[in-house]
Amino acid sequence: MKHFLVRSVVRGLIIGRHGSCYVSTVRRFEVAAMRHHLQGVGGYGGFYWSRMMASAGNTEAKLAEQDQKKESSVTEAKKNGQSVVESSYWGISRSKITREDGTEWPWNCFMPWDTYRADLSIDLTKHHVPKTFLDKFAYRTVKLLRIPTDMFFKRRYGCRAMMLETVAAVPGMVGGMLLHLRSLRKFQHSGGWIKALLEEAENERMHLMTMVELVKPKWYERLLVLIVQGVFFNAYFVVYLLSPKMAHRIVGYLEEEAIHSYTEYLKDLNSGKIENVPAPAIAIDYWRLPKDATLKDVITVIRADEAHHRDVNHFASDVHFLGKELRESPAPISYH
Amino acid sequence: MKHFLVRSVVRGLIIGRHGSCYVSTVRRFEVAAMRHHLQGVGGYGGFYWSRMMASAGNTEAKLAEQDQKKESSVTEAKKNGQSVVESSYWGISRSKITREDGTEWPWNCFMPWDTYRADLSIDLTKHHVPKTFLDKFAYRTVKLLRIPTDMFFKRRYGCRAMMLETVAAVPGMVGGMLLHLRSLRKFQHSGGWIKALLEEAENERMHLMTMVELVKPKWYERLLVLIVQGVFFNAYFVVYLLSPKMAHRIVGYLEEEAIHSYTEYLKDLNSGKIENVPAPAIAIDYWRLPKDATLKDVITVIRADEAHHRDVNHFASDVHFLGKELRESPAPISYH
Repeated sequence: MKHFLVRSVVRGLIIGRHGSCYVSTVRRFEVAAMRHHLQGVGGYGGFYWSRMMASAGNTEAKLAEQDQKKESSVTEAKKNGQSVVESSYWGISRSKITREDGTEWPWNCFMPWDTYRADLSIDLTKHHVPKTFLDKFAYRTVKLLRIPTDMFFKRRYGCRAMMLETVAAVPGMVGGMLLHLRSLRKFQHSGGWIKALLEEAENERMHLMTMVELVKPKWYERLLVLIVQGVFFNAYFVVYLLSPKMAHRIVGYLEEEAIHSYTEYLKDLNSGKIENVPAPAIAIDYWRLPKDATLKDVITVIRADEAHHRDVNHFASDVHFLGKELRESPAPISYH
Repeated sequence: MKHFLVRSVVRGLIIGRHGSCYVSTVRRFEVAAMRHHLQGVGGYGGFYWSRMMASAGNTEAKLAEQDQKKESSVTEAKKNGQSVVESSYWGISRSKITREDGTEWPWNCFMPWDTYRADLSIDLTKHHVPKTFLDKFAYRTVKLLRIPTDMFFKRRYGCRAMMLETVAAVPGMVGGMLLHLRSLRKFQHSGGWIKALLEEAENERMHLMTMVELVKPKWYERLLVLIVQGVFFNAYFVVYLLSPKMAHRIVGYLEEEAIHSYTEYLKDLNSGKIENVPAPAIAIDYWRLPKDATLKDVITVIRADEAHHRDVNHFASDVHFLGKELRESPAPISYH
């Protein structure tokens, strides 16, 4: 994947499938129109920022700006139910970002430039054949974990996906945090792996934010998540400290299982066992899906994400297997 | 700060002070030239991606692409001392990013679109007057922590900065991680605060990566960092669980002290007590400083960063003080 590093720039450049346009009332700069062509995916989009303020150097304009800024921070403060003084005092307020159709960008958890179009061309069948003892142990562990999961969820794939994403978003955060702390202790660079693993965690969390729009967790499921997170976070934390090689391998195999589960999910969607409802708004914006996208499209892009995480984690484990540290081989940043 | 949200896009758009140009050999898209004007900071830059491959739809070209991709992954693999099979098997390789002058982008820990120009216009004198018991407790704690620090470092500000940045990069990571886990447990959005706090942690880590180019830690300093991180990470973790309101307030006050220390550092640089050496290459790239930037410029932008973190953390504490959760008020993403 020679292009993964550039993906995060592309996110900053292309929004929407058919050239949606975002306008910001933000001062300080002006960006002329930019066009691009996305080969393969076939998307086409434009990205415009227009400056609403008068030209630079104009004192009156600047004063007006300040007033408008203050005004907006007042509105913002009111909107957030905060005291105006406090909000304007720290000068923290959200800049207004609107779509081409004038509607405001509705998400705070991700911005237009965090969105992307999933790479569906990825090979879903790849499998790391366990050779070493560690690999076999990791593989068996994952296969064992699958048994109770299958028994609990059976074919309730919506609920299954929602529950498992609360676990899937943990390893990236643990790994990223431990590499961050290591980088500080050792005064060493990270090779981009902190960012790569945190991106994985955030991506899995977005899967959860999507699934929760489709399935509402029951009280005992919430309780289960609480317990599972407590156990899994600590277990993975310890495993990562003892053997990052095995930790990444386990995640690699977990992702292989995730791909399998999402494929089964798609089978039930195709056979009509599960209703192919319209895609949630958050999914349409996050993966830049067409307005009429359905649950089937959402599960397809989520499965592609999992396949990418599979590659990253097996690769990370391989790097350790070669007796090297992750920082020695550049991280796959923005590899989705 | 009405513009903070757009900063991260700007990072994707502007590179270098005088329109440096980055070329990637990455396939799949083509971005036409884009120009912008950065008011106030007065910077001016252009950002070009050029596609090296033949036009889309050309099968031969695509095959050639695949060959080249394979070839590069081979080279990459060799460079990283990894088995070619493994690297090309997972298809993880770093895309080549070069500057206008043809030199390769040397950093893996941050990409051109992660860089930014610090906002030096920020008010350095802001101070949150402690009113409540928690505020006073946080303030006294920070003031107490300052005493042994002053005794240990005296006016060795280079060493002091290097050592303290290993601590400064911890709170953002702890806060971000805890909010991430909370978002998963509660099936709730984060309002962007996970990202905002992780960005703070990464920014502080970049300060460390810069300082370590100027000051080499001695063995007993490395040992001290080890101990301090162990204590501080766990202490802050517990405090954040018990009272995020106080945790953020403490960081707010720590940042106020950091601003003071960096101001003293600048005094010694101006008076010639500390030699104003040339800025490290990493700092020039990360903050888009001019080629002839000096340590004085670096300390000035780092101080501006700390002032922004001060605002964010005092604001976060204020939100909690109003009995609200952070997710209820949009996070200052990319607020530097």
